[in-house]
Amino acid sequence: MTLALAEAARGLGRTAPNPPVGCVIVQGDELVGRGFHPRAGEPHAEVFALRDAGERARGATAYVTLEPCSHHGRTPPCADALIAAGVRRVVVAALDPNPLVAGSGVQKLRDAGIEVTVGVLEAGAVRQQAGFRSAVVRGRPWVVAKYAMTLDGKVAALNESNGAVSGPQARERTMRWRDELDAIAVGSGTLGLDDPALTTRGVPGGRDPRPVVFDRRAASDPQARAWRDGAVLVTAPDADATAHEAVGITVQRADSLPDALSGLAGLGIGSVLLEGGPTLLSAFFAQGLVDEVRVFVSPKLLGAGLSPLTGPTRPMHEAQALRDVTVETLGPDVLITGLLHDIPRV
Amino acid sequence: MTLALAEAARGLGRTAPNPPVGCVIVQGDELVGRGFHPRAGEPHAEVFALRDAGERARGATAYVTLEPCSHHGRTPPCADALIAAGVRRVVVAALDPNPLVAGSGVQKLRDAGIEVTVGVLEAGAVRQQAGFRSAVVRGRPWVVAKYAMTLDGKVAALNESNGAVSGPQARERTMRWRDELDAIAVGSGTLGLDDPALTTRGVPGGRDPRPVVFDRRAASDPQARAWRDGAVLVTAPDADATAHEAVGITVQRADSLPDALSGLAGLGIGSVLLEGGPTLLSAFFAQGLVDEVRVFVSPKLLGAGLSPLTGPTRPMHEAQALRDVTVETLGPDVLITGLLHDIPRV
Repeated sequence: MTLALAEAARGLGRTAPNPPVGCVIVQGDELVGRGFHPRAGEPHAEVFALRDAGERARGATAYVTLEPCSHHGRTPPCADALIAAGVRRVVVAALDPNPLVAGSGVQKLRDAGIEVTVGVLEAGAVRQQAGFRSAVVRGRPWVVAKYAMTLDGKVAALNESNGAVSGPQARERTMRWRDELDAIAVGSGTLGLDDPALTTRGVPGGRDPRPVVFDRRAASDPQARAWRDGAVLVTAPDADATAHEAVGITVQRADSLPDALSGLAGLGIGSVLLEGGPTLLSAFFAQGLVDEVRVFVSPKLLGAGLSPLTGPTRPMHEAQALRDVTVETLGPDVLITGLLHDIPRV
Repeated sequence: MTLALAEAARGLGRTAPNPPVGCVIVQGDELVGRGFHPRAGEPHAEVFALRDAGERARGATAYVTLEPCSHHGRTPPCADALIAAGVRRVVVAALDPNPLVAGSGVQKLRDAGIEVTVGVLEAGAVRQQAGFRSAVVRGRPWVVAKYAMTLDGKVAALNESNGAVSGPQARERTMRWRDELDAIAVGSGTLGLDDPALTTRGVPGGRDPRPVVFDRRAASDPQARAWRDGAVLVTAPDADATAHEAVGITVQRADSLPDALSGLAGLGIGSVLLEGGPTLLSAFFAQGLVDEVRVFVSPKLLGAGLSPLTGPTRPMHEAQALRDVTVETLGPDVLITGLLHDIPRV
């Protein structure tokens, strides 16, 4: 299953609105097939793995990171393909939360006499599929807030024109996240201040996330660097976005942040890397819309500057604890991550 | 030398204005003597170790964490005692920065035909002796700022009446530091808000640090819990501290923070654990008077609240990087420590 998860990871950031899925097929001790879902509209992981295995799939065990589908979508059901190939056993990491599947894929396999095991390395699979699961179950993307702060809790502007907070290893990791998540979001403040490119740099085979700019008044410069193909302007229902529309920017109108996120899910965006400044981050946090945080803590003191989150003072016991916390030393910095919400399961 | 450092550690927080020093004596493969300096006025570590070894010190090797003294202070020179005991070899972790010693102890041993090695586990010894070294060389205590903040850089009041920022392991570690440092400092704001006891709790054999309260106007309540034996009020030259003096509080008058720190060194305080709130910490930091920081980062988000350090905004490249950084997971929290200044050496 570890290999299947590694296969799935190759599709991260490329499959929305579908999940990244990997599949490996094992005959005895031998790996006979592997595959992953490369993007929506292309075949699913199981199909690639079965093609790779050919006749050797007969009597083999298939490891797949998500329950095989049982319904006709853009492609025929993968459960049928596994049955037709004569697979003897299927090991599934996690059930599909899509109400069209949600256990029926496993049922179909079992009805065909295939032995099915569910829940192997489930947590890792669910993490990989967070965007898909969030969009399918909650109708909004999985929002990952990322920032870098000093040991006295100060953040700098996105483009680091005043000097980077964290080191090159942190930057490298951030670029990998940009490659893996569907979209990157900033506010109009960051756009105006930094004119960031919001691209993925230095990742071999990397692709750029869709830029999403929260700009209630549509006052941002339509010539800013962020406005490349696929870019989305999130603005108020009555804002004048004709200049943005004129240059081909997708305009998503919303009354509120939850509405805006629903709209983004409707555009096929399952996961968002929130790299905006304190204003945007604070708005998301105050409304409970941050699902996960990834924070670089840099061992330096600034003494003054912006705080990552602002708002009315609250007592410490109202702080929201992160779950599934990870701590990692990355060069000079410490990366601390955790979840504020559970990733939807079945 | 590791054993000698462990011996020395038994005196931490108890020896000021002297350094904590440990000594072990080894004859062949056998440990024949050990000792540490328990407090000013009592014999030095070497004397205890030599007493412990007795005749077996002859021809032995002595490991000592600080250069043996060569001058007559309150006790006769330890170099003479080592020579008289017939020790063959002396291994020293670090030279004594005291201008009255500063290599002359080693010279005296060598002149007597003893083989001397200097610099074994030096960094660890220098860390143990930071308070002594700071007081002797710089004329002010080594200032260790301690705070706990959330992952969005927010701190709470000292007594945690609003809920603790960090977990019990962090509290336990803090209590150990209180046991090891000479004094604990807070500002009048913290005193008034929290009425903290500033004691060492839950450390077997622990002792309380001297409470130091920075209160420019001497407006704090002389009946506050912090005012136990040995407590120091740091106040302005013209403040009316008669009420504090009346209850036996030591009053240290100073025009500025550097003056105040000189005064504390004059009272025999070599190290200070700064547990004050953002106001006091920011004043120390702005004047370059924080030597070391120990920060608990707790994986939770508050969204609003006090920042550990405040002041006029500065660009990120002016942040002060910590040196000798350590990162440790302590229960749910992450402890990050580092130095802003070098500990004085010879």
